[in-house]
Amino acid sequence: MRDSYREQLDEILNDLVEMSQLVAEAVRAATTALLESDIHQAEQVITRDDDLDNRQHDIENRTFSLLARQAPVAGELRTLVATLRMVNELERMGDLAVHVAKIARMRYPDPAVPDRLRPNFVRMGDVAEKMVVSAGQTLSDRNLELARELRERDEEMDDLRKSQFRVLLSDDWEYGVEAAVDVALLGRYYERIADHASSMARRVIYIVTGSYPDDENQVVS
Amino acid sequence: MRDSYREQLDEILNDLVEMSQLVAEAVRAATTALLESDIHQAEQVITRDDDLDNRQHDIENRTFSLLARQAPVAGELRTLVATLRMVNELERMGDLAVHVAKIARMRYPDPAVPDRLRPNFVRMGDVAEKMVVSAGQTLSDRNLELARELRERDEEMDDLRKSQFRVLLSDDWEYGVEAAVDVALLGRYYERIADHASSMARRVIYIVTGSYPDDENQVVS
Repeated sequence: MRDSYREQLDEILNDLVEMSQLVAEAVRAATTALLESDIHQAEQVITRDDDLDNRQHDIENRTFSLLARQAPVAGELRTLVATLRMVNELERMGDLAVHVAKIARMRYPDPAVPDRLRPNFVRMGDVAEKMVVSAGQTLSDRNLELARELRERDEEMDDLRKSQFRVLLSDDWEYGVEAAVDVALLGRYYERIADHASSMARRVIYIVTGSYPDDENQVVS
Repeated sequence: MRDSYREQLDEILNDLVEMSQLVAEAVRAATTALLESDIHQAEQVITRDDDLDNRQHDIENRTFSLLARQAPVAGELRTLVATLRMVNELERMGDLAVHVAKIARMRYPDPAVPDRLRPNFVRMGDVAEKMVVSAGQTLSDRNLELARELRERDEEMDDLRKSQFRVLLSDDWEYGVEAAVDVALLGRYYERIADHASSMARRVIYIVTGSYPDDENQVVS
Protein backbone atom coordinates (compact mmCIF):
# COMPACT_ATOMS: atom_id res chain seq x y z
CA MET A 1 0.00 0.00 0.00
CA ARG A 2 2.70 2.50 1.00
CA ASP A 3 4.81 1.33 -1.92
CA SER A 4 2.11 2.12 -4.41
CA TYR A 5 1.61 5.47 -2.67
CA ARG A 6 5.30 6.25 -3.06
CA GLU A 7 5.17 5.13 -6.69
CA GLN A 8 2.28 7.44 -7.47
CA LEU A 9 4.05 10.31 -5.78
CA ASP A 10 7.17 9.62 -7.85
CA GLU A 11 5.09 9.55 -11.04
CA ILE A 12 3.65 12.94 -10.15
CA LEU A 13 7.13 14.35 -9.60
CA ASN A 14 8.31 12.89 -12.91
CA ASP A 15 5.37 14.51 -14.68
CA LEU A 16 6.21 17.78 -13.00
CA VAL A 17 9.78 17.54 -14.31
CA GLU A 18 8.43 16.75 -17.79
CA MET A 19 6.10 19.75 -17.57
CA SER A 20 9.06 21.95 -16.64
CA GLN A 21 10.82 20.79 -19.83
CA LEU A 22 7.78 21.75 -21.91
CA VAL A 23 7.65 25.14 -20.19
CA ALA A 24 11.36 25.68 -20.90
CA GLU A 25 10.63 24.87 -24.58
CA ALA A 26 7.74 27.33 -24.56
CA VAL A 27 10.01 30.04 -23.18
CA ARG A 28 12.66 29.30 -25.80
CA ALA A 29 10.08 29.27 -28.64
CA ALA A 30 8.54 32.52 -27.39
CA THR A 31 11.96 34.17 -27.40
CA THR A 32 12.60 32.92 -30.95
CA ALA A 33 9.18 34.19 -32.02
CA LEU A 34 10.03 37.54 -30.48
CA LEU A 35 13.56 37.98 -31.77
CA GLU A 36 13.14 36.38 -35.20
CA SER A 37 9.58 37.62 -35.81
CA ASP A 38 8.72 33.96 -36.24
CA ILE A 39 4.93 33.81 -36.44
CA HIS A 40 4.91 30.03 -36.64
CA GLN A 41 6.72 29.70 -33.31
CA ALA A 42 4.45 32.34 -31.80
CA GLU A 43 1.33 30.40 -32.82
CA GLN A 44 2.79 27.17 -31.48
CA VAL A 45 3.50 28.65 -28.06
CA ILE A 46 -0.05 29.96 -27.92
CA THR A 47 -1.68 26.72 -29.11
CA ARG A 48 0.41 24.43 -26.95
CA ASP A 49 -0.51 26.27 -23.78
CA ASP A 50 -3.68 24.14 -23.65
CA ASP A 51 -1.52 21.09 -23.22
CA LEU A 52 0.26 22.73 -20.28
CA ASP A 53 -3.08 23.61 -18.71
CA ASN A 54 -4.28 20.03 -19.11
CA ARG A 55 -1.10 18.71 -17.54
CA GLN A 56 -1.56 21.12 -14.66
CA HIS A 57 -5.10 19.88 -14.01
CA ASP A 58 -4.06 16.27 -14.29
CA ILE A 59 -1.16 16.69 -11.84
CA GLU A 60 -3.36 18.64 -9.45
CA ASN A 61 -6.11 16.04 -9.52
CA ARG A 62 -3.70 13.22 -8.82
CA THR A 63 -1.92 15.15 -6.06
CA PHE A 64 -5.20 16.06 -4.49
CA SER A 65 -6.44 12.50 -4.58
CA LEU A 66 -3.21 11.27 -2.95
CA LEU A 67 -3.68 13.90 -0.26
CA ALA A 68 -7.25 12.74 0.29
CA ARG A 69 -6.76 9.02 0.05
CA GLN A 70 -4.25 8.28 2.70
CA ALA A 71 -2.85 10.42 5.48
CA PRO A 72 0.64 11.12 4.16
CA VAL A 73 3.62 11.14 6.49
CA ALA A 74 5.41 14.45 7.09
CA GLY A 75 7.87 14.36 4.17
CA GLU A 76 5.19 13.21 1.76
CA LEU A 77 2.77 15.87 2.90
CA ARG A 78 5.48 18.48 2.35
CA THR A 79 6.09 17.10 -1.13
CA LEU A 80 2.38 17.02 -2.03
CA VAL A 81 1.74 20.57 -0.89
CA ALA A 82 4.88 21.80 -2.65
CA THR A 83 3.72 19.96 -5.79
CA LEU A 84 0.46 21.88 -5.84
CA ARG A 85 2.48 25.08 -5.67
CA MET A 86 5.07 24.10 -8.24
CA VAL A 87 2.53 23.03 -10.83
CA ASN A 88 0.87 26.41 -10.40
CA GLU A 89 4.18 28.19 -10.95
CA LEU A 90 4.81 26.16 -14.10
CA GLU A 91 1.37 26.99 -15.45
CA ARG A 92 2.03 30.69 -14.82
CA MET A 93 5.41 30.53 -16.58
CA GLY A 94 3.60 28.97 -19.55
CA ASP A 95 1.08 31.85 -19.54
CA LEU A 96 3.90 34.37 -19.45
CA ALA A 97 5.55 32.70 -22.47
CA VAL A 98 2.17 33.06 -24.21
CA HIS A 99 2.14 36.78 -23.37
CA VAL A 100 5.57 37.14 -24.99
CA ALA A 101 4.42 35.18 -28.05
CA LYS A 102 1.30 37.33 -28.37
CA ILE A 103 3.34 40.54 -28.49
CA ALA A 104 5.52 38.95 -31.19
CA ARG A 105 2.37 38.01 -33.12
CA MET A 106 0.78 41.42 -32.67
CA ARG A 107 3.79 43.21 -34.20
CA TYR A 108 4.48 40.64 -36.92
CA PRO A 109 6.03 41.01 -39.48
CA ASP A 110 7.80 43.85 -37.68
CA PRO A 111 10.02 42.99 -34.74
CA ALA A 112 8.62 44.02 -31.34
CA VAL A 113 12.11 44.50 -29.93
CA PRO A 114 14.16 47.40 -31.32
CA ASP A 115 17.67 46.59 -32.51
CA ARG A 116 19.30 48.39 -29.67
CA LEU A 117 17.67 46.08 -27.13
CA ARG A 118 18.11 42.83 -29.04
CA PRO A 119 21.26 41.75 -27.14
CA ASN A 120 19.47 42.49 -23.89
CA PHE A 121 16.48 40.30 -24.84
CA VAL A 122 18.68 37.54 -26.25
CA ARG A 123 20.24 37.38 -22.79
CA MET A 124 16.93 37.69 -20.95
CA GLY A 125 15.39 34.87 -22.99
CA ASP A 126 18.41 32.69 -22.39
CA VAL A 127 18.53 33.35 -18.66
CA ALA A 128 14.78 32.74 -18.28
CA GLU A 129 14.91 29.46 -20.21
CA LYS A 130 17.96 28.24 -18.28
CA MET A 131 16.26 29.10 -15.02
CA VAL A 132 13.23 26.99 -15.91
CA VAL A 133 15.53 24.12 -16.91
CA SER A 134 17.48 24.45 -13.66
CA ALA A 135 14.29 24.55 -11.61
CA GLY A 136 13.21 21.27 -13.25
CA GLN A 137 16.65 19.73 -12.70
CA THR A 138 16.64 20.83 -9.09
CA LEU A 139 13.49 18.78 -8.74
CA SER A 140 14.66 15.73 -10.72
CA ASP A 141 18.13 15.54 -9.18
CA ARG A 142 17.32 17.01 -5.76
CA ASN A 143 20.42 19.03 -6.38
CA LEU A 144 20.58 21.94 -4.01
CA GLU A 145 23.63 23.43 -5.72
CA LEU A 146 21.46 24.20 -8.75
CA ALA A 147 19.13 26.21 -6.55
CA ARG A 148 22.03 28.44 -5.59
CA GLU A 149 22.93 28.95 -9.26
CA LEU A 150 19.33 29.93 -9.88
CA ARG A 151 19.64 32.71 -7.35
CA GLU A 152 22.62 34.13 -9.21
CA ARG A 153 20.79 33.97 -12.52
CA ASP A 154 17.86 35.74 -10.94
CA GLU A 155 20.20 38.59 -10.03
CA GLU A 156 21.40 38.71 -13.63
CA MET A 157 17.75 38.99 -14.72
CA ASP A 158 17.30 41.95 -12.37
CA ASP A 159 20.38 43.63 -13.84
CA LEU A 160 19.13 43.04 -17.39
CA ARG A 161 15.81 44.63 -16.54
CA LYS A 162 17.51 47.63 -14.94
CA SER A 163 19.66 48.19 -18.01
CA GLN A 164 16.52 47.93 -20.17
CA PHE A 165 14.96 50.75 -18.19
CA ARG A 166 18.11 52.84 -18.58
CA VAL A 167 17.89 52.47 -22.38
CA LEU A 168 14.12 53.00 -22.46
CA LEU A 169 14.24 56.15 -20.41
CA SER A 170 17.37 57.67 -21.92
CA ASP A 171 16.99 60.92 -23.83
CA ASP A 172 17.97 59.31 -27.10
CA TRP A 173 15.30 56.57 -27.17
CA GLU A 174 14.35 56.73 -30.83
CA TYR A 175 11.75 53.95 -31.20
CA GLY A 176 8.65 55.72 -29.96
CA VAL A 177 6.00 54.91 -27.40
CA GLU A 178 4.65 51.64 -28.79
CA ALA A 179 8.06 49.96 -28.72
CA ALA A 180 8.68 51.34 -25.24
CA VAL A 181 5.42 49.87 -23.96
CA ASP A 182 6.19 46.51 -25.57
CA VAL A 183 9.67 46.43 -24.07
CA ALA A 184 8.43 47.38 -20.60
CA LEU A 185 5.83 44.61 -20.60
CA LEU A 186 8.14 42.02 -22.17
CA GLY A 187 10.74 42.79 -19.53
CA ARG A 188 8.13 42.31 -16.86
CA TYR A 189 7.06 38.94 -18.31
CA TYR A 190 10.62 37.59 -18.41
CA GLU A 191 11.28 38.87 -14.91
CA ARG A 192 8.20 37.03 -13.65
CA ILE A 193 9.26 33.79 -15.36
CA ALA A 194 12.54 34.09 -13.48
CA ASP A 195 10.72 34.77 -10.20
CA HIS A 196 8.56 31.68 -10.62
CA ALA A 197 11.59 29.52 -11.46
CA SER A 198 13.39 30.75 -8.33
CA SER A 199 10.34 30.16 -6.25
CA MET A 200 10.00 26.64 -7.64
CA ALA A 201 13.61 25.87 -6.73
CA ARG A 202 12.99 27.16 -3.21
CA ARG A 203 10.14 24.69 -2.90
CA VAL A 204 12.43 21.84 -3.92
CA ILE A 205 14.85 22.85 -1.18
CA TYR A 206 11.91 22.85 1.18
CA ILE A 207 10.96 19.33 0.12
CA VAL A 208 14.50 18.04 0.56
CA THR A 209 15.53 19.83 3.73
CA GLY A 210 12.24 20.70 5.41
CA SER A 211 13.13 24.36 5.55
CA TYR A 212 13.74 27.20 3.16
CA PRO A 213 17.24 28.08 1.94
CA ASP A 214 17.50 31.56 3.39
CA ASP A 215 15.48 33.75 5.60
CA GLU A 216 12.72 33.79 8.08
CA ASN A 217 10.18 31.73 6.16
CA GLN A 218 10.44 28.33 7.72
CA VAL A 219 7.05 27.65 6.24
CA VAL A 220 5.23 26.59 3.11
CA SER A 221 5.35 29.85 1.26
CA MET B 1 -11.28 16.63 18.82
CA ARG B 2 -13.18 17.25 15.59
CA ASP B 3 -14.80 20.32 17.15
CA SER B 4 -11.46 21.89 17.93
CA TYR B 5 -10.33 20.99 14.43
CA ARG B 6 -13.34 22.77 12.95
CA GLU B 7 -12.71 25.76 15.24
CA GLN B 8 -9.13 26.08 14.11
CA LEU B 9 -10.21 25.86 10.50
CA ASP B 10 -12.77 28.61 11.08
CA GLU B 11 -10.14 30.80 12.72
CA ILE B 12 -7.92 30.37 9.71
CA LEU B 13 -10.75 31.38 7.38
CA ASN B 14 -11.51 34.42 9.56
CA ASP B 15 -7.88 35.46 9.41
CA LEU B 16 -7.96 35.05 5.65
CA VAL B 17 -10.98 37.37 5.47
CA GLU B 18 -9.18 39.88 7.72
CA MET B 19 -6.11 39.67 5.47
CA SER B 20 -8.30 40.37 2.45
CA GLN B 21 -9.53 43.56 4.17
CA LEU B 22 -5.94 44.68 4.73
CA VAL B 23 -5.10 43.94 1.11
CA ALA B 24 -8.13 45.96 -0.04
CA GLU B 25 -6.86 48.84 2.14
CA ALA B 26 -3.41 48.50 0.59
CA VAL B 27 -4.91 48.69 -2.90
CA ARG B 28 -6.94 51.77 -1.95
CA ALA B 29 -3.93 53.47 -0.34
CA ALA B 30 -1.73 52.66 -3.34
CA THR B 31 -4.30 54.23 -5.66
CA THR B 32 -4.45 57.34 -3.47
CA ALA B 33 -0.66 57.49 -3.43
CA LEU B 34 -0.68 57.25 -7.21
CA LEU B 35 -3.44 59.69 -8.01
CA GLU B 36 -2.77 62.26 -5.29
CA SER B 37 1.03 61.95 -5.34
CA ASP B 38 0.69 61.13 -1.65
CA ILE B 39 4.15 60.02 -0.55
CA HIS B 40 2.95 59.24 2.98
CA GLN B 41 0.41 56.72 1.70
CA ALA B 42 2.99 55.27 -0.67
CA GLU B 43 5.43 54.67 2.19
CA GLN B 44 2.69 53.12 4.30
CA VAL B 45 1.73 50.61 1.62
CA ILE B 46 5.38 49.65 1.23
CA THR B 47 6.06 49.37 4.98
CA ARG B 48 2.87 47.52 5.81
CA ASP B 49 3.57 44.79 3.29
CA ASP B 50 5.73 43.09 5.94
CA ASP B 51 2.62 42.63 8.04
CA LEU B 52 0.85 40.95 5.11
CA ASP B 53 3.83 38.66 4.58
CA ASN B 54 3.81 37.72 8.25
CA ARG B 55 0.11 37.00 8.14
CA GLN B 56 0.63 34.84 5.08
CA HIS B 57 3.29 32.78 6.84
CA ASP B 58 1.20 32.45 9.96
CA ILE B 59 -1.88 31.29 8.03
CA GLU B 60 0.21 28.87 5.97
CA ASN B 61 1.86 27.38 9.01
CA ARG B 62 -1.44 26.82 10.76
CA THR B 63 -3.07 25.37 7.63
CA PHE B 64 -0.15 23.10 7.07
CA SER B 65 -0.19 21.88 10.64
CA LEU B 66 -3.93 21.15 10.40
CA LEU B 67 -3.26 19.21 7.21
CA ALA B 68 -0.51 17.25 8.94
CA ARG B 69 -2.14 16.67 12.29
CA GLN B 70 -5.33 14.88 11.44
CA ALA B 71 -6.58 13.38 8.20
CA PRO B 72 -9.19 15.92 7.17
CA VAL B 73 -12.48 14.77 5.64
CA ALA B 74 -13.13 15.67 1.99
CA GLY B 75 -14.71 19.12 2.49
CA GLU B 76 -12.05 20.13 5.00
CA LEU B 77 -9.25 18.96 2.77
CA ARG B 78 -10.72 21.03 -0.06
CA THR B 79 -10.89 24.03 2.23
CA LEU B 80 -7.34 23.60 3.51
CA VAL B 81 -5.84 23.26 0.05
CA ALA B 82 -7.89 26.23 -1.21
CA THR B 83 -6.67 28.22 1.81
CA LEU B 84 -3.05 27.66 0.85
CA ARG B 85 -3.87 29.00 -2.59
CA MET B 86 -5.94 31.94 -1.43
CA VAL B 87 -3.36 33.19 1.04
CA ASN B 88 -0.84 33.11 -1.79
CA GLU B 89 -3.15 35.17 -4.02
CA LEU B 90 -3.63 37.72 -1.24
CA GLU B 91 0.10 38.01 -0.70
CA ARG B 92 0.58 38.62 -4.44
CA MET B 93 -2.13 41.29 -4.48
CA GLY B 94 -0.29 42.99 -1.63
CA ASP B 95 2.94 42.88 -3.63
CA LEU B 96 1.20 44.38 -6.64
CA ALA B 97 -0.13 47.23 -4.47
CA VAL B 98 3.49 47.79 -3.39
CA HIS B 99 4.55 47.96 -7.06
CA VAL B 100 1.93 50.66 -7.66
CA ALA B 101 3.06 52.56 -4.55
CA LYS B 102 6.71 52.37 -5.64
CA ILE B 103 5.94 53.96 -8.99
CA ALA B 104 4.07 56.74 -7.15
CA ARG B 105 7.09 57.21 -4.87
CA MET B 106 9.57 57.13 -7.74
CA ARG B 107 7.80 59.97 -9.57
CA TYR B 108 6.98 62.02 -6.46
CA PRO B 109 6.30 64.97 -6.31
CA ASP B 110 5.19 64.64 -9.92
CA PRO B 111 2.18 62.49 -10.69
CA ALA B 112 2.98 59.20 -12.45
CA VAL B 113 -0.39 59.20 -14.21
CA PRO B 114 -0.96 61.89 -16.85
CA ASP B 115 -4.16 63.94 -16.55
CA ARG B 116 -5.73 62.35 -19.55
CA LEU B 117 -5.63 58.91 -17.93
CA ARG B 118 -6.64 59.96 -14.43
CA PRO B 119 -10.32 59.01 -14.87
CA ASN B 120 -9.24 55.64 -16.22
CA PHE B 121 -7.01 54.97 -13.20
CA VAL B 122 -9.59 56.26 -10.73
CA ARG B 123 -11.91 53.61 -12.13
CA MET B 124 -9.21 50.91 -12.26
CA GLY B 125 -8.27 51.54 -8.64
CA ASP B 126 -11.89 51.44 -7.58
CA VAL B 127 -12.67 48.24 -9.50
CA ALA B 128 -9.54 46.51 -8.17
CA GLU B 129 -10.29 47.49 -4.57
CA LYS B 130 -13.95 46.42 -4.85
CA MET B 131 -12.89 43.11 -6.34
CA VAL B 132 -10.61 42.39 -3.39
CA VAL B 133 -13.42 43.33 -1.00
CA SER B 134 -15.87 41.08 -2.87
CA ALA B 135 -13.42 38.20 -2.91
CA GLY B 136 -13.13 38.51 0.89
CA GLN B 137 -16.90 38.74 1.28
CA THR B 138 -17.40 35.74 -0.96
CA LEU B 139 -15.30 33.85 1.55
CA SER B 140 -16.90 35.27 4.71
CA ASP B 141 -20.51 34.97 3.50
CA ARG B 142 -20.09 31.96 1.20
CA ASN B 143 -22.11 34.07 -1.16
CA LEU B 144 -21.83 32.70 -4.67
CA GLU B 145 -23.72 35.65 -6.17
CA LEU B 146 -20.76 37.87 -5.30
CA ALA B 147 -18.49 35.62 -7.32
CA ARG B 148 -20.63 36.27 -10.38
CA GLU B 149 -20.41 40.03 -9.78
CA LEU B 150 -16.66 39.66 -9.60
CA ARG B 151 -16.60 38.18 -13.05
CA GLU B 152 -18.40 41.21 -14.43
CA ARG B 153 -15.99 43.57 -12.70
CA ASP B 154 -13.12 41.61 -14.15
CA GLU B 155 -14.53 42.30 -17.62
CA GLU B 156 -14.70 46.00 -16.78
CA MET B 157 -11.04 45.83 -15.78
CA ASP B 158 -10.19 44.31 -19.16
CA ASP B 159 -12.09 47.10 -20.92
CA LEU B 160 -10.29 49.76 -18.87
CA ARG B 161 -6.96 48.29 -19.82
CA LYS B 162 -7.88 48.18 -23.49
CA SER B 163 -8.93 51.82 -23.46
CA GLN B 164 -5.64 52.67 -21.72
CA PHE B 165 -3.74 51.09 -24.59
CA ARG B 166 -5.82 53.02 -27.11
CA VAL B 167 -4.83 56.29 -25.42
CA LEU B 168 -1.20 55.24 -24.96
CA LEU B 169 -0.75 54.23 -28.56
CA SER B 170 -2.74 57.03 -30.16
CA ASP B 171 -0.85 59.49 -32.37
CA ASP B 172 -1.50 62.36 -30.01
CA TRP B 173 0.04 60.83 -26.87
CA GLU B 174 1.85 63.88 -25.51
CA TYR B 175 3.38 62.65 -22.28
CA GLY B 176 6.50 60.94 -23.54
CA VAL B 177 8.04 57.51 -23.06
CA GLU B 178 8.52 57.51 -19.29
CA ALA B 179 4.83 58.15 -18.61
CA ALA B 180 3.87 55.53 -21.21
CA VAL B 181 6.06 52.91 -19.53
CA ASP B 182 4.62 53.79 -16.10
CA VAL B 183 1.07 53.55 -17.38
CA ALA B 184 1.67 50.22 -19.14
CA LEU B 185 3.12 48.67 -16.00
CA LEU B 186 0.54 50.20 -13.66
CA GLY B 187 -2.23 48.86 -15.89
CA ARG B 188 -0.64 45.45 -15.75
CA TYR B 189 -0.44 45.55 -11.93
CA TYR B 190 -4.10 46.48 -11.53
CA GLU B 191 -5.12 43.84 -14.05
CA ARG B 192 -3.22 41.22 -12.07
CA ILE B 193 -4.85 42.30 -8.80
CA ALA B 194 -8.21 41.75 -10.50
CA ASP B 195 -7.10 38.35 -11.80
CA HIS B 196 -6.06 37.23 -8.33
CA ALA B 197 -9.33 38.44 -6.81
CA SER B 198 -11.33 36.51 -9.43
CA SER B 199 -9.24 33.45 -8.88
CA MET B 200 -9.76 33.70 -5.12
CA ALA B 201 -13.54 33.86 -5.60
CA ARG B 202 -13.38 30.78 -7.83
CA ARG B 203 -11.67 28.92 -5.03
CA VAL B 204 -14.46 29.88 -2.62
CA ILE B 205 -16.99 28.45 -5.06
CA TYR B 206 -14.86 25.33 -5.16
CA ILE B 207 -14.91 25.08 -1.37
CA VAL B 208 -18.67 25.54 -1.22
CA THR B 209 -19.77 23.46 -4.18
CA GLY B 210 -16.89 21.05 -4.73
CA SER B 211 -16.50 22.17 -8.32
CA TYR B 212 -15.54 25.28 -10.23
CA PRO B 213 -18.14 27.77 -11.47
CA ASP B 214 -17.55 27.40 -15.17
CA ASP B 215 -15.53 25.26 -17.41
CA GLU B 216 -13.66 22.09 -17.62
CA ASN B 217 -11.55 22.49 -14.50
CA GLN B 218 -13.31 20.30 -11.98
CA VAL B 219 -10.09 20.34 -10.06
CA VAL B 220 -8.03 22.31 -7.62
CA SER B 221 -6.66 24.90 -9.98
